[in-house]
Amino acid sequence: MPDTVPCFRHTLRVYWEDTDAGGVVFYANYLKFFERARTEWLRSLGFGQERLRTETGAIFIVSDTTVRYVKPARLDDLIDVTVDVRQAGRASLLIAQQAIRCDAARDEELLAEGTIRIACVDAGTFRLRRIPTDVLAALEPEQDTR
Amino acid sequence: MPDTVPCFRHTLRVYWEDTDAGGVVFYANYLKFFERARTEWLRSLGFGQERLRTETGAIFIVSDTTVRYVKPARLDDLIDVTVDVRQAGRASLLIAQQAIRCDAARDEELLAEGTIRIACVDAGTFRLRRIPTDVLAALEPEQDTR
Amino acid sequence: MPDTVPCFRHTLRVYWEDTDAGGVVFYANYLKFFERARTEWLRSLGFGQERLRTETGAIFIVSDTTVRYVKPARLDDLIDVTVDVRQAGRASLLIAQQAIRCDAARDEELLAEGTIRIACVDAGTFRLRRIPTDVLAALEPEQDTR
Amino acid sequence: MPDTVPCFRHTLRVYWEDTDAGGVVFYANYLKFFERARTEWLRSLGFGQERLRTETGAIFIVSDTTVRYVKPARLDDLIDVTVDVRQAGRASLLIAQQAIRCDAARDEELLAEGTIRIACVDAGTFRLRRIPTDVLAALEPEQDTR
Repeated sequence: MPDTVPCFRHTLRVYWEDTDAGGVVFYANYLKFFERARTEWLRSLGFGQERLRTETGAIFIVSDTTVRYVKPARLDDLIDVTVDVRQAGRASLLIAQQAIRCDAARDEELLAEGTIRIACVDAGTFRLRRIPTDVLAALEPEQDTR
Repeated sequence: MPDTVPCFRHTLRVYWEDTDAGGVVFYANYLKFFERARTEWLRSLGFGQERLRTETGAIFIVSDTTVRYVKPARLDDLIDVTVDVRQAGRASLLIAQQAIRCDAARDEELLAEGTIRIACVDAGTFRLRRIPTDVLAALEPEQDTR
Repeated sequence: MPDTVPCFRHTLRVYWEDTDAGGVVFYANYLKFFERARTEWLRSLGFGQERLRTETGAIFIVSDTTVRYVKPARLDDLIDVTVDVRQAGRASLLIAQQAIRCDAARDEELLAEGTIRIACVDAGTFRLRRIPTDVLAALEPEQDTR
Repeated sequence: MPDTVPCFRHTLRVYWEDTDAGGVVFYANYLKFFERARTEWLRSLGFGQERLRTETGAIFIVSDTTVRYVKPARLDDLIDVTVDVRQAGRASLLIAQQAIRCDAARDEELLAEGTIRIACVDAGTFRLRRIPTDVLAALEPEQDTR
């Protein structure tokens, strides 16, 4: 398969709340941006997290993160955040994500990138459990291309 | 004038980052939601805040806030935030805002409402200054209806 | 009673996470600072909120806030936040709070002040309930001075 | 050298603002906790970051983070965050950090751990520059023990 299979993209705007006194986006906030994109990606597959929790008792928690910060983002920037499943196990997923500045006047610029491991746990006990079957099924076509 | 003049609305989604251990949106975050809506409202009038700062040296700061919290919002909720200019002075604006849950299955529900006073200051000195003329001009038709 | 009865004070430091691209503390964060001080004040009276929730099912939620922002705080500032109960009802408290910069080299400077109404609700249903009796009792000597 | 050389520790409390609807500390906030500890560690060496910026034009930015989340922290927990310099280069430092729950009634529990690379840049241009000499000098005794 060519590398050009499009992955999921979520677009967001940088607001005052996201910045720090350095004049740029506070680095910890890229984890929030990545989270929003994963949430919208799950929703695009048909799974709202609040409904997942209510109906199956499953919540996804983050167990590992690595992030590399490449260029600073600034107030009012429009940012695309990608979601790309790299591994899908029974109880966890490894997801690669990028934050990319979209600017009509310039080429795309990579701002930050990382890998996030999310694990499926029981909402009450926080113990590992299998990812609900229909969620895993929804991921499968995506995995086939890798 | 009838009460039905539509005011500006910005729609946003509730993510994990917005919630607290009570299971609902952390109340301080409504100020962030209100801010995002004001930013998009200014942009809809033609004024990006980063550009305003670069070109005129003016930034808007918040000088007073009152918020009344009515109903809790939850993960995955879609929220409309309104922007309604109540007073426009030379150096400050008084803005009324509401956060309203939009849910296809139910009527609209008021979650929180408040008034925000924003003042125009010099980005370097934080001293009060006049709101740039073209910003005030862009607000005028809106004021005429009140 | 003289006005000099000391009220509760909690000291905190301004970190990068608290600031925004204006170079100062993001205004919404004063609500967080006020919250930390109220939490430590309750703890000083003998009530951890997590234990209150577990043992009595009661949580305090914020129902109204008014904040006036007077001077900007900056990275590394030390801030004292005061807690002063103005009214204590069966199910809610009205609390006045100030954020004051402490700087050995200068006089104290008021940065922000506001009033916060907190209501006691059931953790499950979010319905109003009486403030646990021992919490109210712990507040009483404080009220007598007003 | 024995493993028991004490590293820097900063103690903090978990407040409502730090939690999410899962009832535990929102994972992205450990980066904030780590940052607070690094800031206090720099201050313990004699370097306030705001003063560093004003006097030398240098700011430290975060260029890489890896975090592993081990156990959830909850409201009211007291957390110790450690700072341990692993490598000190001309323009960057690699720092290992842990968040550990301190509870009189129980043994210490590791909540999260990670490595943070911070780089020294010019506050205006964000270009890499040498770490100010006196900062590096202050780190040296610490490195000798490793």
